[in-house]
Amino acid sequence: MVHFRGIIGYLVTPFGPSGVPDLPALSGLVDHLIEQGVHAIAPLGSTGESAYLSRNEWESVARTTIDSTAGRLPVVVGASALTTRDTVDLCRCAEALGADAVMVLPISYWKLTDDEIFQHYQAVSDAIDIPIMAYNNPATAGIDMSPELLHRMFRDIENVTMVKESSGDIQRMHSLHHLSSGTLPYFNGCNPLALEAFAAGAAGWCTAAPNLIGHDVGKMWAAVEANDFESVRNLFLDNLKLLSFILEGGLPATIKAGLSLLGKPCGIPRLPLSPLPVTKQDTLAELLNISR
Amino acid sequence: MVHFRGIIGYLVTPFGPSGVPDLPALSGLVDHLIEQGVHAIAPLGSTGESAYLSRNEWESVARTTIDSTAGRLPVVVGASALTTRDTVDLCRCAEALGADAVMVLPISYWKLTDDEIFQHYQAVSDAIDIPIMAYNNPATAGIDMSPELLHRMFRDIENVTMVKESSGDIQRMHSLHHLSSGTLPYFNGCNPLALEAFAAGAAGWCTAAPNLIGHDVGKMWAAVEANDFESVRNLFLDNLKLLSFILEGGLPATIKAGLSLLGKPCGIPRLPLSPLPVTKQDTLAELLNISR
Amino acid sequence: MVHFRGIIGYLVTPFGPSGVPDLPALSGLVDHLIEQGVHAIAPLGSTGESAYLSRNEWESVARTTIDSTAGRLPVVVGASALTTRDTVDLCRCAEALGADAVMVLPISYWKLTDDEIFQHYQAVSDAIDIPIMAYNNPATAGIDMSPELLHRMFRDIENVTMVKESSGDIQRMHSLHHLSSGTLPYFNGCNPLALEAFAAGAAGWCTAAPNLIGHDVGKMWAAVEANDFESVRNLFLDNLKLLSFILEGGLPATIKAGLSLLGKPCGIPRLPLSPLPVTKQDTLAELLNISR
Amino acid sequence: MVHFRGIIGYLVTPFGPSGVPDLPALSGLVDHLIEQGVHAIAPLGSTGESAYLSRNEWESVARTTIDSTAGRLPVVVGASALTTRDTVDLCRCAEALGADAVMVLPISYWKLTDDEIFQHYQAVSDAIDIPIMAYNNPATAGIDMSPELLHRMFRDIENVTMVKESSGDIQRMHSLHHLSSGTLPYFNGCNPLALEAFAAGAAGWCTAAPNLIGHDVGKMWAAVEANDFESVRNLFLDNLKLLSFILEGGLPATIKAGLSLLGKPCGIPRLPLSPLPVTKQDTLAELLNISR
Repeated sequence: MVHFRGIIGYLVTPFGPSGVPDLPALSGLVDHLIEQGVHAIAPLGSTGESAYLSRNEWESVARTTIDSTAGRLPVVVGASALTTRDTVDLCRCAEALGADAVMVLPISYWKLTDDEIFQHYQAVSDAIDIPIMAYNNPATAGIDMSPELLHRMFRDIENVTMVKESSGDIQRMHSLHHLSSGTLPYFNGCNPLALEAFAAGAAGWCTAAPNLIGHDVGKMWAAVEANDFESVRNLFLDNLKLLSFILEGGLPATIKAGLSLLGKPCGIPRLPLSPLPVTKQDTLAELLNISR
Repeated sequence: MVHFRGIIGYLVTPFGPSGVPDLPALSGLVDHLIEQGVHAIAPLGSTGESAYLSRNEWESVARTTIDSTAGRLPVVVGASALTTRDTVDLCRCAEALGADAVMVLPISYWKLTDDEIFQHYQAVSDAIDIPIMAYNNPATAGIDMSPELLHRMFRDIENVTMVKESSGDIQRMHSLHHLSSGTLPYFNGCNPLALEAFAAGAAGWCTAAPNLIGHDVGKMWAAVEANDFESVRNLFLDNLKLLSFILEGGLPATIKAGLSLLGKPCGIPRLPLSPLPVTKQDTLAELLNISR
Repeated sequence: MVHFRGIIGYLVTPFGPSGVPDLPALSGLVDHLIEQGVHAIAPLGSTGESAYLSRNEWESVARTTIDSTAGRLPVVVGASALTTRDTVDLCRCAEALGADAVMVLPISYWKLTDDEIFQHYQAVSDAIDIPIMAYNNPATAGIDMSPELLHRMFRDIENVTMVKESSGDIQRMHSLHHLSSGTLPYFNGCNPLALEAFAAGAAGWCTAAPNLIGHDVGKMWAAVEANDFESVRNLFLDNLKLLSFILEGGLPATIKAGLSLLGKPCGIPRLPLSPLPVTKQDTLAELLNISR
Repeated sequence: MVHFRGIIGYLVTPFGPSGVPDLPALSGLVDHLIEQGVHAIAPLGSTGESAYLSRNEWESVARTTIDSTAGRLPVVVGASALTTRDTVDLCRCAEALGADAVMVLPISYWKLTDDEIFQHYQAVSDAIDIPIMAYNNPATAGIDMSPELLHRMFRDIENVTMVKESSGDIQRMHSLHHLSSGTLPYFNGCNPLALEAFAAGAAGWCTAAPNLIGHDVGKMWAAVEANDFESVRNLFLDNLKLLSFILEGGLPATIKAGLSLLGKPCGIPRLPLSPLPVTKQDTLAELLNISR
């Protein structure tokens, strides 16, 4: 089984002029991310607008990413749907396509009890043989999984082997550490909390930032590994405005706008999401030191 | 154009043993709701598990409800999807099937700006010729529409003619009243706030409660119309524990359990939603004065 | 024992040019409030800036109010301090001065447990022989007393005989009703929630609004008593902007500014509180239909 | 002017059997804290129950602390009152007694605007010639000062030279860094956030923890200075349960109970605060590795 650690780079889903996924462009973005020095590739996350894709579009994006990565790095595929049945279907598909792991977020319309969430992950685990990254992101999913629940699933559900924490509450990470006596690898999914997550001992960082600032993200991780926290802090503070900006403006719109500024156009987000307004494009260019 | 006012009764979506919509049972539930004295019928809302249905299932439920109602009452069909394109598709379908109005909730994965929400409703309005009920329910949709936005859409978007407010904040209703100088009809969608919404002058109540306590709901509205608020208060306080219970337990699970207790079995909710636990079924039976 | 019901009118504490309490002006304000038709008089509440007065100032305001009221109406005196010892001292003083009841708010620096709050009220009750109004106002006190705690104190502490609820959560009132089977009289202390509290069956309204709009407040209560809720609603909606305005601007500053506009100058609040800014004075004059 | 940096140790206020400050015991606690290796001494903070002391008690505690410290370390005295006048009085008194700095918290009953807070600090600054630590602690004070306001006061008010941030929101510290281009020294005042504050580059830690675990706190700061963040993390995680426990149980009650377990009895908190319950004393003993 693949061991995940370090920077997991998240892909956008490029759309062509007609609004359908642009698979050749996606293939180019995979190469771009790998060149930035990330340690794993992640399509179909929040950044990848997976929630807005049809089942067929989702599958074509998963397939293209895995095929383009071609074993150079591990791939963790976002596979989340509103019903348990559809989630199992996506996870089986990801496994069949060659994914190294799936990332599962308990999106739902009605709030779910802890038991309902547990059974949801259990059903997924029963259906596949690759690792599951349990993904907590209350801001987008509307469901908040406590450290206690995440640890219970890690302990009791075979394929739940890691956690992505995007709640923005650093104390959750300390709780996961204590509950599991340090055995549960957790990844930070909240960009402006990167410094604190490194300080806390996170196994890595799930982020779309390498699309835009891969060099600095790579240096940050190297400094973490070297126990040189002054450098981590300086790199983080230098990039914090950008990290906050891409989160506040919505990752799909801001990362796509940034890639376009970097000469890698990949279309705009799907409605009801709007493209980044021009004034914010200017701010982004400034944050990226790009003259327009 | 149909004028909505009073009690709008929400349907569950019954599932058969194999987990697919049980259309004959649905037809029976339409008759049951009409017998309870509601003033309009609403399939495919939150209670109707619309978020968990496939496109085909959604259409069959809409068609069966409209056909079974057969003009006895107006029908407002819940028609919400994650993308603007899919929402327009559902609304056009509802209109073609004979719906009197559509109820549109801006569900989304990423938070939407006010402009994105406005454009979403504008696109729907441009595509159909029946009224749109703008539905605010931050707890399930993850998006909270301010009274200012709701009023702006009512004023500027042709087919947005009414609001369903489920935020649970009574001040929103007063704001809608003042912003529109009393011209915007708003319906309460938060069961435990029914008394306050009547006090505030709501045009009606969107509720699944008539499935279980249609008699008292009917008497409550009659007392409202008669300006006999002592009676409204007494009826409300007598039923508040039930109204809170069905909300806290999740409307699909609790209403389905209640209908079963009343001799109208309609299956269980779709996974990841669980059926009402047995101990809560006992509480529900007690609240409904049913001996088991 | 005096039975409280209806409108309890709250006094400001007028300050003279040198910043000390202006007792003759206070006496005039007592007459003004009684002329507005309130059913009881309340000095030294939040509006009365009691938190900012010295022990001696507090006592002189309590004495002047009681003496000026001279038995025309019951008087409930705000008597709250950070320590239990000082609170007991104030309550004993109020009783000795002739107060009909004391209103006690559990202000504190550190959050208090339910047991600490219970013991605090028990100590006060043991020290006096007049009724205690337990006052819940988390926004100013930093402590939020649940309906369960309030009901337990009402049931188990001899002199706790009524509640003032200012949390702004209408469900608390329904809970108090159910927990006490309707025996606990609760008063609304949140001005913009007056309509809902009347709808819920509150025993009355604790408010500084009669200083400015005594006529309409009186008509509102008369309509409540007559079960004419349409009139209650219309009067409330006509005055809601004012009721919200005086709360948002801070009651001491806004009520003092309003009294000044009405020809009853009573100085400005004590620092760090600022007087109402001139632009807001203009808004207030407009809301009161006063031409400047 | 004294330069503050590192660990600022906070004192409890010991009470004798009759409930008045035990000044000889206080003197012993000053020695104890200095022996733990702290870099400054702070009486009359939240831990010191300053909010519950009379004016005379406050002065005797300030005097005893300063005299007992006798110049071995700088002393920052908590000096906060509800009115501006009383706050100025306390700050002048602290300066006259020989304090090196005052710590001012904008406690208030009514919420204050930014302008009211600014004027409050300006009035204090105008009255004294020693540094002011602006203290943000919304949980106890009920007022939340934004980084923008704190920076504005640092820039524009002469004696405001440092900030103590106890909101528990790590992003505030990054904002202070960026707003002041790294020139504003901020201290962490939220114990469970110590790791993150060190990571962010805080000038130090304001904490009562050295009363109980001075050795580890000292090693933590030494590791910070040595850029050895692995050691900081390990020391923090080893002590996090204790750091969270003393915050949750209320600092006065838990620190006093802990000092008693360590053979330095200093009485119990003043009512309405209760002493630490026996079961929690057992937990505390366990966290401190003390057998009872």
